[in-house]
Amino acid sequence: MEETRLAKKLGLLIRRLRVEAGLSQEEFAYKVGIHRTYAGAVERGEKTVTIETASKFASALDLKLSQMFAMLESQSD
Amino acid sequence: MEETRLAKKLGLLIRRLRVEAGLSQEEFAYKVGIHRTYAGAVERGEKTVTIETASKFASALDLKLSQMFAMLESQSD
Repeated sequence: MEETRLAKKLGLLIRRLRVEAGLSQEEFAYKVGIHRTYAGAVERGEKTVTIETASKFASALDLKLSQMFAMLESQSD
Repeated sequence: MEETRLAKKLGLLIRRLRVEAGLSQEEFAYKVGIHRTYAGAVERGEKTVTIETASKFASALDLKLSQMFAMLESQSD
């Protein structure tokens, strides 16, 4: 998967799951343990996260990393 | 999963899969598209990779990111 596309797709997925979980960006960022502006940048696909940060996002969404990426891979392009 | 533990576990997994694939560190780094010394640091868990870099490693091992993380999660601690 192309570089920038991956960050973009992950951001969109995270945003969708966060909204489905009924969390504001602020509440979600607090749960992940990062700043709200950073969480926003990740959702917009502007930030490339490390696997550790991706793991924190997954945990805050009650997912394993593998599950989060499986959801991402199953999305149509 | 704890931060440093994740990089460590991923490094060990990547090294195991690379060796199983019969690739030297140099051949593998070339396939991933990164420098050999960087590949070595990742295998030793000294470098925290981005999801994009993790995706390149997975591709070079003919795995999806979700599959690589599923293998990582299924390992005993």
